Amino acid sequence: MGAGQIFVWEMLGTAVLILLGTGVVANHVLRDTLGSGTGFLFVNFGWAFAVFTGASIAAPSGAHLNPAVTLGLAITGKTEWADVPIYVLAQLVGAIIGATLCWLTYKLQFDTHPEPANTLGIFSTAPTVRNPLWNTVTEVIGTFVLVGWILLSPAAKAAGTDGVPQFGNSALGYAAVAFVVLVIGTSLGGPTGYAINPARDLGPRIAYAILPIRGKGSADWGYSWVPIVGPLIGALLAGLLYLVLPV
Amino acid sequence: MGAGQIFVWEMLGTAVLILLGTGVVANHVLRDTLGSGTGFLFVNFGWAFAVFTGASIAAPSGAHLNPAVTLGLAITGKTEWADVPIYVLAQLVGAIIGATLCWLTYKLQFDTHPEPANTLGIFSTAPTVRNPLWNTVTEVIGTFVLVGWILLSPAAKAAGTDGVPQFGNSALGYAAVAFVVLVIGTSLGGPTGYAINPARDLGPRIAYAILPIRGKGSADWGYSWVPIVGPLIGALLAGLLYLVLPV
Amino acid sequence: MGAGQIFVWEMLGTAVLILLGTGVVANHVLRDTLGSGTGFLFVNFGWAFAVFTGASIAAPSGAHLNPAVTLGLAITGKTEWADVPIYVLAQLVGAIIGATLCWLTYKLQFDTHPEPANTLGIFSTAPTVRNPLWNTVTEVIGTFVLVGWILLSPAAKAAGTDGVPQFGNSALGYAAVAFVVLVIGTSLGGPTGYAINPARDLGPRIAYAILPIRGKGSADWGYSWVPIVGPLIGALLAGLLYLVLPV
Amino acid sequence: MGAGQIFVWEMLGTAVLILLGTGVVANHVLRDTLGSGTGFLFVNFGWAFAVFTGASIAAPSGAHLNPAVTLGLAITGKTEWADVPIYVLAQLVGAIIGATLCWLTYKLQFDTHPEPANTLGIFSTAPTVRNPLWNTVTEVIGTFVLVGWILLSPAAKAAGTDGVPQFGNSALGYAAVAFVVLVIGTSLGGPTGYAINPARDLGPRIAYAILPIRGKGSADWGYSWVPIVGPLIGALLAGLLYLVLPV
Repeated sequence: MGAGQIFVWEMLGTAVLILLGTGVVANHVLRDTLGSGTGFLFVNFGWAFAVFTGASIAAPSGAHLNPAVTLGLAITGKTEWADVPIYVLAQLVGAIIGATLCWLTYKLQFDTHPEPANTLGIFSTAPTVRNPLWNTVTEVIGTFVLVGWILLSPAAKAAGTDGVPQFGNSALGYAAVAFVVLVIGTSLGGPTGYAINPARDLGPRIAYAILPIRGKGSADWGYSWVPIVGPLIGALLAGLLYLVLPV
Repeated sequence: MGAGQIFVWEMLGTAVLILLGTGVVANHVLRDTLGSGTGFLFVNFGWAFAVFTGASIAAPSGAHLNPAVTLGLAITGKTEWADVPIYVLAQLVGAIIGATLCWLTYKLQFDTHPEPANTLGIFSTAPTVRNPLWNTVTEVIGTFVLVGWILLSPAAKAAGTDGVPQFGNSALGYAAVAFVVLVIGTSLGGPTGYAINPARDLGPRIAYAILPIRGKGSADWGYSWVPIVGPLIGALLAGLLYLVLPV
Repeated sequence: MGAGQIFVWEMLGTAVLILLGTGVVANHVLRDTLGSGTGFLFVNFGWAFAVFTGASIAAPSGAHLNPAVTLGLAITGKTEWADVPIYVLAQLVGAIIGATLCWLTYKLQFDTHPEPANTLGIFSTAPTVRNPLWNTVTEVIGTFVLVGWILLSPAAKAAGTDGVPQFGNSALGYAAVAFVVLVIGTSLGGPTGYAINPARDLGPRIAYAILPIRGKGSADWGYSWVPIVGPLIGALLAGLLYLVLPV
Repeated sequence: MGAGQIFVWEMLGTAVLILLGTGVVANHVLRDTLGSGTGFLFVNFGWAFAVFTGASIAAPSGAHLNPAVTLGLAITGKTEWADVPIYVLAQLVGAIIGATLCWLTYKLQFDTHPEPANTLGIFSTAPTVRNPLWNTVTEVIGTFVLVGWILLSPAAKAAGTDGVPQFGNSALGYAAVAFVVLVIGTSLGGPTGYAINPARDLGPRIAYAILPIRGKGSADWGYSWVPIVGPLIGALLAGLLYLVLPV
């Protein structure tokens, strides 16, 4: 597949993923929405089926939507290293576009929110207890499960029987990865908000810094490296495990 | 497929969709129900599997159930323009029937509800912050995701392998579109209640205006054009994107 | 299939359905449980996947588990009238067994419940506003959607391609009917608790009347005909619609 | 399949199962998490898709992940008795590893939890009303449904068509078993927290006893035999039923 094709599908799929993922958090966090305060299971379902929707749109490029997934696939020889920069750039651009569309969707609610300085959490992740080392450990473990599952599960591999990587052409593979993201959220998302994807965190953080959001607060760049480094280490460990196992 | 067949299946499928969709809102909103006050995730699941049920019944006609979907399919050459009026008329009639059945299901609860003037929200959508321009933007984005996904996702296209458009003859394609409607609800439904379907909003609004609902309030015709125009623009943009992309 | 086979599978499947269905209500209603007061969506998920589990066990006999489903299939010629009494008897016996197992599962919690006279709702349905005519209408509409979907949906029919009626040998058909039961619960279950199955209501009511439940109240036989008559009328109407439609 | 292969896949799958399962309880129970106090449905979804994720990773070994499942399969001749010790040992080791990873994921939250002596419930199950006999009955019934479904459901058996036991190579079989675990949780999990798996309870209990968790309380060894004996009896009864039925 040409670099242009990869770029288009990864950008489009990641934009949809981030629009829907940041959207459910906006719906939960902002005051003047129908879903205000619905809870963490609501957020988990939103992100899970954001992955379903974005990934099934990006099927032609393999639906990575995540630099950590791209890294895991490159380490194990399933994606060419030369394509990695295209994937990552498209994912980052798509994430910025998606976060911008989320802001446009909730423009009126951002404008009426009583605590506008506290809206970064709609865009990017933040830890409940700040400690760079342990926050990184949490992100490593969450991403290890995600990328490990993609590499190891026969359910994921069986879907890709017609030349389309990872999740195939039926809805089943995309539902499977959505289920995995659902449970990573419910079970490993408590301490840091499960970035498990550098583009998912960095793209919206850039959007938050740039967009003219009324009364916005800091983009908290001091934390921004954790949801990049943690997921990349998790993907690296999952890739190495795959190479060692008798698959 | 003949016009009569299209009419029957679209009408029946849309009636079931709207019965179940307005039904979950009635269950959440009205006081004397078992689901009173359950929350927005409850409403999202109700609408999502209302789409599953209605669409899988309407499989023979392609399960549009939505003038915006019909428009997106016509723009991209997947439905003939000559059939569009049949589809839209059947969807509108079905929506009125479905909303009427919802009222009959909850007849006793409408009669005992302490705020009967506030029951329009069971039938039609309303914005949390009223602003026609931005409310329209929200509906455009939500419908763009729905129709764009239907047009672009290999998961949707792969299902239609035996002459049945869109979602095929297995339950999988209908589950997939239900998942997409679930996440549009959780993530983009906060500001306007995600009409994303002109028939879904107009049909029940007509029913509300006509039915002898005890103590009912205004049908709010001033807002009624937003959930018609927004979804049609969203479908138009999704159709144009499809024509431009290297699908 | 012989009458003995039908009896075994319908009894076993219905017992599992009712154990799991009444179990989720016990978990929600009783005080000393981990799920006490979790809410109506919780109850809806419990009943939906109770159907999934019971129906996939009863696949050899077609997984009716419900006299209304048996009636709809008999009217449309999909089940022989001579087998109907076997199906219904097995469903009723299974329902009594399942309700008894629920009581054994929650024996300690029944014993410590502070309002033991109010535990009928764990076993059988009751209306929030009592009115036999309108309560029957609600049950008619709910069952009409269930049986109509089973008869009309290509998703249900496509599953039964290898001689197994209704839902086939893969998990997909059973997931589909679970999704339909989920949305009937969220959307039509508010007024009467969606019996939509005479055996589901009568069997546990008989069990409640017989079992030595500590401090139990009335079995409310005055209401017991509604969740029998309503579902049978709904199934009759769905069967007649099927015979009229150009399927 | 060689003993080494069985050991690797069962250990890995059980570790992921227990990491995600104990993780959702940690998220619900601990104070400083994003999911704190979300509720029992949240916990049920977490455990259900923990099974999905762990089982689909452990497909090569048949994805038992549970000594009760191994026992049921051995009784019915689907697993060789000689392999049973390998399965059980791998499951126990995996469970200890998974519980340890859960502690590392939530390390900061364990350290800030205001009631650290009450954290055993994150690791192991406990009854709401303590009574060894009836607690055992509850565990017997829950495990009987799980193992009975695995043995009897055509949905489970149809998945294993290519030499892989139980759930096959597509995501569908793993989703099916996740749905069954979901409903066992909602419906039978109220009294004892649905261990339904000796390794799921004993492994984390050992981890709790060993790990240097800040301010931890007792490991409650007095109850520890119930979630071992109950599940084994339930699996035995399910296996005997299978041998008697005209499957």
